Amino acid sequence: MRPVPTREDKFSFGLWTVGWQARDLFGEATRPVLAGVEAVHKLAELGAYGITFHDDDLVPPDSTATQRDTIIKEFKAALAETGLVVPMMTTNLFGDPVFKDGGFTSNDRGVRRYALRKVMRNMDLAAELGAEIYVFWGGREGSEVDFAKDVRAALDRYREGIDLLAQYSIDKGYNMRFAIEPKPNEPRGDILLPSIGHALAFISQLEHHEMVGINPEVGHEQMASLNYTHGIAQALWQEKLFHIDLNGQKGPRYDQDLVFGYGDLLQAFSTVDLLENGAPGGGPTYDGDRHFDYKPLRTEDMAGVWESALANMELYITLRERSNEFRADPRVQEALEEAGVAALNEPTLNAGESYEQLIADPSTFESYDIDAARTRGYGFARIQRYAIEHLLGVNGPKEA
Amino acid sequence: MRPVPTREDKFSFGLWTVGWQARDLFGEATRPVLAGVEAVHKLAELGAYGITFHDDDLVPPDSTATQRDTIIKEFKAALAETGLVVPMMTTNLFGDPVFKDGGFTSNDRGVRRYALRKVMRNMDLAAELGAEIYVFWGGREGSEVDFAKDVRAALDRYREGIDLLAQYSIDKGYNMRFAIEPKPNEPRGDILLPSIGHALAFISQLEHHEMVGINPEVGHEQMASLNYTHGIAQALWQEKLFHIDLNGQKGPRYDQDLVFGYGDLLQAFSTVDLLENGAPGGGPTYDGDRHFDYKPLRTEDMAGVWESALANMELYITLRERSNEFRADPRVQEALEEAGVAALNEPTLNAGESYEQLIADPSTFESYDIDAARTRGYGFARIQRYAIEHLLGVNGPKEA
Amino acid sequence: MRPVPTREDKFSFGLWTVGWQARDLFGEATRPVLAGVEAVHKLAELGAYGITFHDDDLVPPDSTATQRDTIIKEFKAALAETGLVVPMMTTNLFGDPVFKDGGFTSNDRGVRRYALRKVMRNMDLAAELGAEIYVFWGGREGSEVDFAKDVRAALDRYREGIDLLAQYSIDKGYNMRFAIEPKPNEPRGDILLPSIGHALAFISQLEHHEMVGINPEVGHEQMASLNYTHGIAQALWQEKLFHIDLNGQKGPRYDQDLVFGYGDLLQAFSTVDLLENGAPGGGPTYDGDRHFDYKPLRTEDMAGVWESALANMELYITLRERSNEFRADPRVQEALEEAGVAALNEPTLNAGESYEQLIADPSTFESYDIDAARTRGYGFARIQRYAIEHLLGVNGPKEA
Amino acid sequence: MRPVPTREDKFSFGLWTVGWQARDLFGEATRPVLAGVEAVHKLAELGAYGITFHDDDLVPPDSTATQRDTIIKEFKAALAETGLVVPMMTTNLFGDPVFKDGGFTSNDRGVRRYALRKVMRNMDLAAELGAEIYVFWGGREGSEVDFAKDVRAALDRYREGIDLLAQYSIDKGYNMRFAIEPKPNEPRGDILLPSIGHALAFISQLEHHEMVGINPEVGHEQMASLNYTHGIAQALWQEKLFHIDLNGQKGPRYDQDLVFGYGDLLQAFSTVDLLENGAPGGGPTYDGDRHFDYKPLRTEDMAGVWESALANMELYITLRERSNEFRADPRVQEALEEAGVAALNEPTLNAGESYEQLIADPSTFESYDIDAARTRGYGFARIQRYAIEHLLGVNGPKEA
Repeated sequence: MRPVPTREDKFSFGLWTVGWQARDLFGEATRPVLAGVEAVHKLAELGAYGITFHDDDLVPPDSTATQRDTIIKEFKAALAETGLVVPMMTTNLFGDPVFKDGGFTSNDRGVRRYALRKVMRNMDLAAELGAEIYVFWGGREGSEVDFAKDVRAALDRYREGIDLLAQYSIDKGYNMRFAIEPKPNEPRGDILLPSIGHALAFISQLEHHEMVGINPEVGHEQMASLNYTHGIAQALWQEKLFHIDLNGQKGPRYDQDLVFGYGDLLQAFSTVDLLENGAPGGGPTYDGDRHFDYKPLRTEDMAGVWESALANMELYITLRERSNEFRADPRVQEALEEAGVAALNEPTLNAGESYEQLIADPSTFESYDIDAARTRGYGFARIQRYAIEHLLGVNGPKEA
Repeated sequence: MRPVPTREDKFSFGLWTVGWQARDLFGEATRPVLAGVEAVHKLAELGAYGITFHDDDLVPPDSTATQRDTIIKEFKAALAETGLVVPMMTTNLFGDPVFKDGGFTSNDRGVRRYALRKVMRNMDLAAELGAEIYVFWGGREGSEVDFAKDVRAALDRYREGIDLLAQYSIDKGYNMRFAIEPKPNEPRGDILLPSIGHALAFISQLEHHEMVGINPEVGHEQMASLNYTHGIAQALWQEKLFHIDLNGQKGPRYDQDLVFGYGDLLQAFSTVDLLENGAPGGGPTYDGDRHFDYKPLRTEDMAGVWESALANMELYITLRERSNEFRADPRVQEALEEAGVAALNEPTLNAGESYEQLIADPSTFESYDIDAARTRGYGFARIQRYAIEHLLGVNGPKEA
Repeated sequence: MRPVPTREDKFSFGLWTVGWQARDLFGEATRPVLAGVEAVHKLAELGAYGITFHDDDLVPPDSTATQRDTIIKEFKAALAETGLVVPMMTTNLFGDPVFKDGGFTSNDRGVRRYALRKVMRNMDLAAELGAEIYVFWGGREGSEVDFAKDVRAALDRYREGIDLLAQYSIDKGYNMRFAIEPKPNEPRGDILLPSIGHALAFISQLEHHEMVGINPEVGHEQMASLNYTHGIAQALWQEKLFHIDLNGQKGPRYDQDLVFGYGDLLQAFSTVDLLENGAPGGGPTYDGDRHFDYKPLRTEDMAGVWESALANMELYITLRERSNEFRADPRVQEALEEAGVAALNEPTLNAGESYEQLIADPSTFESYDIDAARTRGYGFARIQRYAIEHLLGVNGPKEA
Repeated sequence: MRPVPTREDKFSFGLWTVGWQARDLFGEATRPVLAGVEAVHKLAELGAYGITFHDDDLVPPDSTATQRDTIIKEFKAALAETGLVVPMMTTNLFGDPVFKDGGFTSNDRGVRRYALRKVMRNMDLAAELGAEIYVFWGGREGSEVDFAKDVRAALDRYREGIDLLAQYSIDKGYNMRFAIEPKPNEPRGDILLPSIGHALAFISQLEHHEMVGINPEVGHEQMASLNYTHGIAQALWQEKLFHIDLNGQKGPRYDQDLVFGYGDLLQAFSTVDLLENGAPGGGPTYDGDRHFDYKPLRTEDMAGVWESALANMELYITLRERSNEFRADPRVQEALEEAGVAALNEPTLNAGESYEQLIADPSTFESYDIDAARTRGYGFARIQRYAIEHLLGVNGPKEA
């Protein structure tokens, strides 16, 4: 049966996704403006749970205070009416020409101060709307000319900015968690904090590191040929997977923002498998909203936009169901067992064993049966084959 | 004048580089075995300062204890004779079929225990030879099948291994510093700790994190489209640049291990500029050995091997000289000043300023002259143009 | 039901695939030698139709004439016994160190002459075994140093080689068709004829161009970020799709040779859809053998090898079945119709219309209703959604 | 001395390059509109020879006939005044939403007819301005959904369009040569004719193939990891290098359009070496205009724009001079000789030799001294080292 999204699935969309007018670097907009209120109603109708936005997505930057108030009031009414929530909010620090050399790390100190103000103003709104996650995508923090950007100084300023804003959240009682979203390049030639790893490393240097995690996007990691599932597994290992951006990407090329799964479908399956059922050997799952950050194709009208919004949710549900079946299959359990997948959780040393004891144990080296270990088959091919079968819903008689 | 390498340049080479017999995935060896002693003499003659190796590079794995002793004795004699040092050593945990699913993170616990033993044995030799850096490249720690490797458990085991070995070094008084070398893929489909960032993040979780840094390789980062200069700048920022591997790579493709600079020459220039002269706005430089990890072309005989070894060192020296000239050029200093490159070191907030004060200052937002900031030119094009001129040694009359 | 391969499916495997001993650039072999005869029996048992090989795969290069005869005789007996055929054969012009600068395009003329001899010798065997397709993969025809390879001269020599061998086939009555296999890089830094397009362009310059087509490999195109389905569509358009190599690849990185579909699964679906059912708007299909050119994971023993061989075939069958269902779905037909997919077959000009008449028709420009065309939705999102549903076997009630 | 561009260098710029307002996918314009007339004067002043444009670059799409006439008249006056020429023109078939599914290959036939009209109208202007080359970049000819575009039908329509326009040029006596510009992706997920090779193959199928060649862009090939120098060498081999687009790109990622040489500087050197001095073994050079198709950084004001325009030309001149020195260096000549670079021009067969004679010559196989060929060094490392030295202007005492 065709999957039907419900609020319990916790699906959310950026207002800038279904609202993208499809203006790109080479061509003009092909779709009209989508008002926030309309987006709320339509997403609720499709089965979504949340909507997210940048300050400027909802309130056009040149609005008067009165216009701003009206927009926000109407938006809140639409939320109340539909039950849609705002689980996450973020700041646009990339669209205005003022941010052409970055926000927190612009060489121009006035820009940096302006950027902090812009964020704080929107954090106030985020708190008012109940957003618990505040995302930082530093798309303009970077450079094209290595000689013209002092990366060490830039990281100092980045830290200064995040530290200050964390303090602001704490002092105001906003109780937000921050999530940094890495990206390797585009629109800058090279962006600071280009991968999940770089962002996690940066976070380890922050004053309030405990309240800062990451918001990894499928396509951003895959633009750098990195395995998204591995990346979020490391983030889970460090207890830093605060939010996710789901979409699709065909490897290293321009940022495509395809529908979730329309890039590397097989990896989308392992991603959902990890988020929903934890690591193959067990472990925590992800419990935040399943957030789609994609762009509907420029060839589509609004009917195509909603078709693609639905497609994101349907595919996620299908992958979740297939993951459940995969995990429950006795053949799979046996194959995982034979491959020693969960056994990797067993420490390499015995309980209380010292390295002296390890050295003193000849079975570990001097008399180790290395040939047996050299020739054993791990059986990963079999696990992969079963995964593909479950992904494709191929059900049949068990093998001989 | 053609640059001439000297010991003061601190150039080192892996024995596996000039000693590579040029057997690749598609073809047989084209060159004979190169003995360690011969490599020591020839590298010393060319002006190198150090030689590094994996345990199995120097001592063939199937050697008897007596053969091993003889090889090591002769190698030490060659070092003594030439003055060459061994600044770094490392373990081969990837060549033997036993490591086909990894060393520290193999699903097979016996393999993990064997791997620890193999490392400790070689650390003893490293201590004996005075190596101060011990490198960990986990080329087989990874997977091709997402469903068959529990990445969280694997990172637990990775940490367990490094923690134990760190303790071993401390207890033995070896006083080594560990350096983890990231790589995104090849030979595994996806390798754990795939980038500088992931390795730095992992290190933040270690018990003895203070003695563990990274050994980033130019090509490994560029295989993931990442900016190597930015990466080592972040490592310097976190005081974790313990060692470097210099070579060349033409973007995301197979691991080429070209001569340093033969991939992205312009970025090689910014790398040397950072290593030798610090960030554009000032800051620490790198003072370890300049280590080349490359593969001489398979088309070459030993004459070509030594030609390419020399080429690595010559190019580094040339880039260092050009960097010095670039930094000293008054036009460059003026352009950096105008672009605000060093000014980024100035905190965004005034000394003692609180966010309340920032909010209370209307010049930061309400009355900010945003149009001036939007239309200013940063002058990065000019800095890039000067950098290219200095790189190419184009000297001429100053501009009109 | 789990799909079961049969001879009618026309699946073939390279002997070098299931026979790969898993020696890679960083490690030693993990599996024993697989004899040709054993491969024939096992593949036949699994449901394959054909086996292919390089000269040196079947007959080790240093065999005596007598040994060679014995090997061939036994191999033929196995073919006769199992009914397996040899639809394609090819030459190893890359493994021996003599080919380190290429075969047909080596700077060393003696090598070039030797290469031609090696090919002709194997073509005689190919004719004897009934191979109708002879493949040319020029993996060593290329360079790492742009200044050291005259590409124009190399293409002259490439053409000379292919022209001569074509004449040889004609004169001998072998009636073979040649298929050139493009690859962008690895093992050479850059390989000549790097993509489907370059090979097709080269073929247009050959004397016997009518008997030369291409053998495109999934992974080789995807290493260059190119769309394999688009590539074979252009080859079909030029009537040059003589053979195919099916496998999997995760974008631009080292040559992975994964099981078919284990890279970009969605594109594997569109590939099978094109091969089996022709272009979306109709057109010829592919009728040669479905040839798998993959490498079983290095972690596997022979059980894993045969598991993965089976996985290739099973997945192909599943994709074929899903393609048939996709094409037969009335919703799909309606969506394709609305999107004008087949309508693209209609010429842009009316029958007999001249450009003067086009210019004279104001409805094409002066009075063209451009706004209607600007705002129409093409409905591609819907087609993609249906394709995903059929790929995953999601069947359900039709939408409202 | 700093190089000074002159008209004799034949440098040209697209009006859309220096005129780019720096609006990108993520942000608004940072620079004002640049009028065509101003661009002409400024480029002439900097030493350029030509200016090129799309119809809509010069004349805003919504201009009245009178406005159009005025703009063209003033533009022609500026050309006359400065002596700047218009060597190439092209059509914008990508910016208007009407082209969202392509121009010549849109699924919508009305769009296809409109596109042909738009091209013909602009060809009339091109003829009037004396443009001898007319470029076709089909940036919107492609798809994101494999199932929704019939590539075979699309190539039929592409051919129909080019054939018709070729006939138009012939009949009108315009005497133009057409140049197709390949690109792999962006803005479409996959673009038709994605590489030099695919375009050359397509051209071989055209009615007026003799008047159609290619306009390869550095960055477009490098986005697909392809070697640009190799690509234009194949185009020269097929006598199809009608025009070039010079710029810079950092491998597979978004289309960067950096200043020429600011991506892969080493390959930029081999490109200029080929264009100016022919293949290493001799052969034709390129004699069209040296056309820069780049985007000034978004961080720059107009001063930075002109700085970067100059940088393109200066770098080209420097590379040309260094190429001349490289070719003239006796050490280089000796190294090329030893490596057999020009010797590759010698046919593999002797004059008049048949394959029977080759087979009858035992020195080619039976008694071939294969070990000598296996162990010879080609000396490519030396050639590369000399190339780098000349590129960097390192002059010194000859080697020992």
